[in-house]
Amino acid sequence: MPSLRFTIAHRSDECHARVGRVETLHGGFDTPAFMPVGTAGAMKGLTPEQMRGTGTQILLNNAYHLMLRPGADLVDRRGGVHAFMRWDGPILTDSGGYQAFSMADISSIDDDGVTFKSIVDGSRVHLTPERSIEVQNDLGADIIMAFDDCPPGRDPASAGERDAAADAARLRVAHERTVRWVQRCRRAHRRPDEQALFGIVQGGTDLDLRRESVEAVCAVDLPGYAIGGVAVGEGPELMAAVVEHTAPLLPADRPRYLMGVGYERDLLTAIRAGVDMFDCVLPTRNGRNAQAFTRSGRLHLRNARFTEDDGVLDPECDCEVCRGGFTRAYVRHLFMAREMLGPILVSMHNIRHFQALMVDIRRAIRENAWSALLGSWPVLASDLSPPAARDVPASHQGRE
Amino acid sequence: MPSLRFTIAHRSDECHARVGRVETLHGGFDTPAFMPVGTAGAMKGLTPEQMRGTGTQILLNNAYHLMLRPGADLVDRRGGVHAFMRWDGPILTDSGGYQAFSMADISSIDDDGVTFKSIVDGSRVHLTPERSIEVQNDLGADIIMAFDDCPPGRDPASAGERDAAADAARLRVAHERTVRWVQRCRRAHRRPDEQALFGIVQGGTDLDLRRESVEAVCAVDLPGYAIGGVAVGEGPELMAAVVEHTAPLLPADRPRYLMGVGYERDLLTAIRAGVDMFDCVLPTRNGRNAQAFTRSGRLHLRNARFTEDDGVLDPECDCEVCRGGFTRAYVRHLFMAREMLGPILVSMHNIRHFQALMVDIRRAIRENAWSALLGSWPVLASDLSPPAARDVPASHQGRE
Repeated sequence: MPSLRFTIAHRSDECHARVGRVETLHGGFDTPAFMPVGTAGAMKGLTPEQMRGTGTQILLNNAYHLMLRPGADLVDRRGGVHAFMRWDGPILTDSGGYQAFSMADISSIDDDGVTFKSIVDGSRVHLTPERSIEVQNDLGADIIMAFDDCPPGRDPASAGERDAAADAARLRVAHERTVRWVQRCRRAHRRPDEQALFGIVQGGTDLDLRRESVEAVCAVDLPGYAIGGVAVGEGPELMAAVVEHTAPLLPADRPRYLMGVGYERDLLTAIRAGVDMFDCVLPTRNGRNAQAFTRSGRLHLRNARFTEDDGVLDPECDCEVCRGGFTRAYVRHLFMAREMLGPILVSMHNIRHFQALMVDIRRAIRENAWSALLGSWPVLASDLSPPAARDVPASHQGRE
Repeated sequence: MPSLRFTIAHRSDECHARVGRVETLHGGFDTPAFMPVGTAGAMKGLTPEQMRGTGTQILLNNAYHLMLRPGADLVDRRGGVHAFMRWDGPILTDSGGYQAFSMADISSIDDDGVTFKSIVDGSRVHLTPERSIEVQNDLGADIIMAFDDCPPGRDPASAGERDAAADAARLRVAHERTVRWVQRCRRAHRRPDEQALFGIVQGGTDLDLRRESVEAVCAVDLPGYAIGGVAVGEGPELMAAVVEHTAPLLPADRPRYLMGVGYERDLLTAIRAGVDMFDCVLPTRNGRNAQAFTRSGRLHLRNARFTEDDGVLDPECDCEVCRGGFTRAYVRHLFMAREMLGPILVSMHNIRHFQALMVDIRRAIRENAWSALLGSWPVLASDLSPPAARDVPASHQGRE
């Protein structure tokens, strides 16, 4: 079989949403799919077995982090990232582009690549499309991502005239560079029979540029395409506009992946626009910060009002934590006592929250049952206004 | 049934060791038993389900910590500590005596009790035998401990003459106070039909005083007795001498509990002297510090020699981590990357290590197969010299 096979089982007749399945050499996953983020080859606080218990079918690792520590060659010598982290299901690795551009202390960017300072030991690291693919070939994930130029985003309305012009110029550079880089990535890819390389579309909030980017990137024949450069500070309305514009332009017979998104409402919007795959750190990052997602909104569990609350995190949830009867009072106690079990339980619950949402969305697509979906997930009907994630900078919503 | 029933199934014919079972209202456990320590109503990093997976049948909570946060009355209103932490098996609570004397900023000690500063909010806390029992009655564990006076220990040979005299005087005060306090504890105990109160023997390293303490404490008819005041800085040889002297003096028909011990060799010594129950923080505390117990000794997993070690933590181990194929190289990576999963995996492994040791010791007792035991656990035959637990102060080996 090819490195990746995508079959669409059902298309919504009232929007672009579709239900399908992706098969890889390490098994398959249902789409639309939510991928939790195990940055450095580990889910923060959860064993692979616990991850399976959340209904997770595929997860994401960051080439950037694993390249810097312990090194992709070391992971390769261990048999690749599946063997290393003991997750035998599908894995996707991010290319390092986003991290190099957003997190690193950059000393230079040019058409060759990016040079930055390692967060691990301060050494100078040079990352190019070829090097990113080499790293991802060594790691051995089932889906690997093209190395893209991913500049920070900004709502044009909030930028001054000169800034807006500079942003626009930067977006065009990023788009053009990303197109050249995806071609270099494809040429550098040593394991196309085992690993599916996805291209990434850029273009920021400029819808015309998005169309140009789709046309140029999708001219390179690849098994899947992603929308990059969203959730980078542009705000939820603009993000929705970009996704609704861009997703339907991507080839209908390939998986479409929206990178680094997001909140429940964002996922639904994107799925209705035809997106099939998502990754986001929100369940685990917010979980570590005592924030539980529920069908009717988020709970800040350190809040004193939960001190004697004998309810579970979400009475509708079927996760190990809620089924197990762990109460809000207990989980609050764990956070107040700085017990590791607090982040563990809330992360586990949050991941299941997102996986259960995907299960229900897939059912809604198949059965055209959107109002039932909104009825059982009130959070989907909440405002599109910026989420009150006090501990998550808006510019850094979903990736790490 | 009474709050606790102890049956001895087999007695060794070559030492004081015995195999038995303790039944409580929340189920039973086999003896000799090892109790992992879930200080504040949570195992550090492990869910109750994972704890069951290690073969743990009973665990320990600290009244001291739960009293200060979230408060014993709050736990009582949640249905007690079993319901609160979602552990439906047997639980033992420590009285708070050890913590009040060893960890607290003490402002006064007298025959009434101890006054110290709360580690949580700095407030003044007064702990008496009556208050400790009230707290433990509220928490609702199956076995509760008398409030004892537990002074720090010291090898008399390493103390100057004046210090030795002062230590001896302090030990006598502690012994006499502990005897008066166990009587007050018994009178204060409101739930003797549900919770078994154990007395605690003191006496330090003075064997005559130990005998006096046994006689006086065991004159109070209680369902079990513990040896306290060991592993408090006296060193392993003196500890062994105290335990070998004291354990056989305790009533043979009641469970004997050695508090805060210890390393594998210490457990075997004590079991051969007739001890039935142990608790120790070593598996989890050392686990958090990247130290894995194995049948042939401890591994410091941050050591560079494990960088490319594809072996599991202990090839003989049947824990979820070793069975699951997580390698030393991977676990080292987790610690280097400061991933929570490192402490989780090593704690899980270490707890199973101790539970598997107890399984094998119980078999050795039943079958008189001591040499087979030593053959499969080389660590038991290692020196009695002070263990090289660099990250664990000797004076604070096993309790917290």
